[in-house]
Amino acid sequence: MAQQIYSTYPPALTAEQEEYLVQTVKDWSIEHALAVRPSTAVVPEGANPNNVLATNAPVTLFPSPFPKSCFEQAKHLQQVYNELYAAITSDEQWLEGVMKELIQVDDFLANLWKIHLAVKEEGYVQDLSLGMFRSDYMLHTTDPNSAPTLKQVEFNTISSSFGGLACKVAELHNHLATYPSPSHPVAYPPHPLFGNSADPKTASSVRSTGHPPPNHAIFALTAGLAAAHEAYGPVKSKSTPPLPTCILFLVQDDERNVFDQLALSTHLFKEHKIPSFRLPVSQILARTSIPSKEANPARPLIYTPPSSPSTQYEVTVVYFRALYGPAEYSSPTIWAARHHLERSAAVKCPTVLLHLSGSKKVQQVLTSKPPGPDHLRFFLPGYAEATLDSLRSTFAPQYALSESEPEGIKLALSEATAANHVLKPQREGGGNNIYRNNIPSFLNSIPRDQWKQYILMELIRPPPEAKNAVLRSDGNVAVGHVVSELGIFGTCLWRSTNFNTTGTTGTTASAKWSAAAPGPQVKKSGLEILWNADGGYLLRTKGKESDEGGVAAGFSSLDSLILYESH
Amino acid sequence: MAQQIYSTYPPALTAEQEEYLVQTVKDWSIEHALAVRPSTAVVPEGANPNNVLATNAPVTLFPSPFPKSCFEQAKHLQQVYNELYAAITSDEQWLEGVMKELIQVDDFLANLWKIHLAVKEEGYVQDLSLGMFRSDYMLHTTDPNSAPTLKQVEFNTISSSFGGLACKVAELHNHLATYPSPSHPVAYPPHPLFGNSADPKTASSVRSTGHPPPNHAIFALTAGLAAAHEAYGPVKSKSTPPLPTCILFLVQDDERNVFDQLALSTHLFKEHKIPSFRLPVSQILARTSIPSKEANPARPLIYTPPSSPSTQYEVTVVYFRALYGPAEYSSPTIWAARHHLERSAAVKCPTVLLHLSGSKKVQQVLTSKPPGPDHLRFFLPGYAEATLDSLRSTFAPQYALSESEPEGIKLALSEATAANHVLKPQREGGGNNIYRNNIPSFLNSIPRDQWKQYILMELIRPPPEAKNAVLRSDGNVAVGHVVSELGIFGTCLWRSTNFNTTGTTGTTASAKWSAAAPGPQVKKSGLEILWNADGGYLLRTKGKESDEGGVAAGFSSLDSLILYESH
Repeated sequence: MAQQIYSTYPPALTAEQEEYLVQTVKDWSIEHALAVRPSTAVVPEGANPNNVLATNAPVTLFPSPFPKSCFEQAKHLQQVYNELYAAITSDEQWLEGVMKELIQVDDFLANLWKIHLAVKEEGYVQDLSLGMFRSDYMLHTTDPNSAPTLKQVEFNTISSSFGGLACKVAELHNHLATYPSPSHPVAYPPHPLFGNSADPKTASSVRSTGHPPPNHAIFALTAGLAAAHEAYGPVKSKSTPPLPTCILFLVQDDERNVFDQLALSTHLFKEHKIPSFRLPVSQILARTSIPSKEANPARPLIYTPPSSPSTQYEVTVVYFRALYGPAEYSSPTIWAARHHLERSAAVKCPTVLLHLSGSKKVQQVLTSKPPGPDHLRFFLPGYAEATLDSLRSTFAPQYALSESEPEGIKLALSEATAANHVLKPQREGGGNNIYRNNIPSFLNSIPRDQWKQYILMELIRPPPEAKNAVLRSDGNVAVGHVVSELGIFGTCLWRSTNFNTTGTTGTTASAKWSAAAPGPQVKKSGLEILWNADGGYLLRTKGKESDEGGVAAGFSSLDSLILYESH
Repeated sequence: MAQQIYSTYPPALTAEQEEYLVQTVKDWSIEHALAVRPSTAVVPEGANPNNVLATNAPVTLFPSPFPKSCFEQAKHLQQVYNELYAAITSDEQWLEGVMKELIQVDDFLANLWKIHLAVKEEGYVQDLSLGMFRSDYMLHTTDPNSAPTLKQVEFNTISSSFGGLACKVAELHNHLATYPSPSHPVAYPPHPLFGNSADPKTASSVRSTGHPPPNHAIFALTAGLAAAHEAYGPVKSKSTPPLPTCILFLVQDDERNVFDQLALSTHLFKEHKIPSFRLPVSQILARTSIPSKEANPARPLIYTPPSSPSTQYEVTVVYFRALYGPAEYSSPTIWAARHHLERSAAVKCPTVLLHLSGSKKVQQVLTSKPPGPDHLRFFLPGYAEATLDSLRSTFAPQYALSESEPEGIKLALSEATAANHVLKPQREGGGNNIYRNNIPSFLNSIPRDQWKQYILMELIRPPPEAKNAVLRSDGNVAVGHVVSELGIFGTCLWRSTNFNTTGTTGTTASAKWSAAAPGPQVKKSGLEILWNADGGYLLRTKGKESDEGGVAAGFSSLDSLILYESH
């Protein structure tokens, strides 16, 4: 049944219909800042000397069908996942146990760990952490007759992007499906999934929402930032005399996805009256400072706006939209800057430990279940077994490539079994995975002691018939079979009570915010959850020939979804 | 005093301040669709093959100071001006008298007039007209010690543009002047006109609003369209069976100012639930039709969306954002299309007669006062003399170049007096004026019987010290002395009761809307005003070296204003 939905969608377009649809998407996108700065592949550098141009973000022309039950499951699990990663981050010992081997072979993870140790040695001055998460899933199909299930691709603990633009794609597809009326939209031909055509082939057995569900990612992510800002301290400034406060958006120097980020900072000021500033990575040490211990042991992070140096701000939250991958740490200065931020009193989103918790290795270790260690039960003592089972059901089988666990190595080196797997390095971001039959030869080409840097994961098999059309940022349209990845955003603010801290900060806001935590009352010790919420969704869709994701890299497109139930 | 305001403004910027300000304006503009499609001067055609790129509209970096009393006067006069042009349009005889001579020498005006005569012969089926006006002014200074006064440049009766973007420029400048707080904005250095610096030179004698007044042009222009849509008929459709109704935005095929227009159509649907479609001029005859007299004598205008031909719409209002100047009438087909629209039952914004009323010749004739004919009193019988005097005070001296009124010819041919004048053709749009000493030689280069196509107008002398900085659409910044032009938008809906009509349409909505007309109870006969409102503002600012306006042509920039009172 489900397969039939994909095989008859999206509806075919006449030339005039495609022309109207594409022109409408182009114009709507710029009108609503569903936009990016173009790459040099779209506009050669010489034709854009002042970097003043914008173009539409790559978007699908239609929302993609998605089973309602899988969407609901992902949404319901988000707060559980949020708490899981909060608990992991608050258990330094457990994390050290998982990372130990990796740190020996991975400089990037080792340097992050060193920053944690150095700040621990000096004493943390901030026991709050903010997580702005995105849990990414794909649909997994085993045979054409059974319903697809949800499998987690990865859990992002740093720089989870596209919340701003994702809201707008849902709005765009809503507009296309309902303007001027849902029964007779101008942009889309009738189709059973839009609820305006009674095609007997599918209509009788499928119920759909007709258009994408509302996406509140901008609202939710902004609320998470505001919660951390509020929790920074009842009397915000730790400086004498007190300073005005702000949130810093830490951004890449050559960021092209700026309108995604501006959607959040604009809403943050409009809704919460919290000022924020964009700080490029290269400017961290020039524009921020921490007073000496003698001057102020609370270590507030002071930001001096270059355009208005006479008014300094105290930073409540550093929101990382940069510094997630090794390639960004191009010099010792950048490492020093990361260390500098970590030792400050600002709430970090994320802390170094939370950044490390997002490693693929952690994801793999979590899949262990009895008779192995039951990590989920350990970190989530208050949850019903059924909830943990639902969470476990989203794990794809995955393996370490470690001498102590030989199964992974065996699966990876055999051509036959490798064909069903992907090899993933620890690092964040797309572009580094090794697929299928390339795995054995790749492994044989690198030293054996490097293998432990990788995780072997069984390939997820998305619905093979799914199709869509994409408007790329260069204005070209591509049509064909596609693969979609659902991301659910979540925000979580917590206090880690096990670390030594110099103990001067933020101990009174918890009463206010803990009411927002809807989870069970039993929490892992060392952890106090102050805020926990799911936060909207993202669908990314790419052409099937491409194995890699990453919308910003131009491979895939922003999408939204039409939920369906087949019965 | 006023001169001093201009000489100390805008505040000087350090390199870091300019960098921050320019980057903020670039990003804010795209984020809020204060945008245009780039011209080929900004991006060569080859670098933009799918016309997918956008760039910021040219904007000033600072709002321009403007005397509050002049702004208030212009706002107060708008409804009077609206009614004046409604009355002119409803007096076919008077208009014919004014246009008679011109029609003999100007093919464009002659063709428009012919359309009116042909439709009159057949019988009009729509007695309602919608005006979406913009009255343009400049400040006029006589000597440095007296306050500037307001002089009208022109009154636009067709395709008055930039209402959508003008609202956003006011918002942009508001953001820059008040983020994160009005006392310490990050983007602007302190200045007395922002209300955050007590510079003793000006602060003591000047009061200002600190930031631009709110601009409700999008709201107001949309309300005007909605009023006409509503008045089209109590049971909207004149078709059997009834059709869904819509408004058509008639646009140029290669329009670059599309986001200005989309701001209106989007608001029209969001606020009033009225669908609208964009109809390029080249598609008028292909996409719209009028039933034969036998089929439906009411002559409804039927629109068939090319992407969804099975659902036809009846057009309540045709909103012209095209076909204002001779260059657009490139073929007999376009003239036929204009005729086709004019004879339909749709409310035209504007009708052919209203289009003709916007001629410079009408503007010149209106300046006549006793002992000549008092046209203002004739058209506006219900207004107090003081109101008409205020309106008259906005007229710059202007003259016909007609044998029967020799004064204009004398002033134009003498080098000494020509130096204080501009020669304007009848047609709309910038780029065709002859300035100062070029006037005598120009006139001598064309046949004498062509002279009557031109109006001679005394040059308006704006404050010579005014300065600003401009971010152009190519991302370059230009700084220098500037000239600003204030436009006040106005909307007016009226019924002309003197023409013969076939009399089937729209006679019952007047009761509802006439309540909105705030003017005096005495109206010129032949005219029933159903809606009359002022509608926000536009400031356009250009470098002083350029004599021509026209933001879209790249010569000038969108601006907003800071109102000041000197005392």
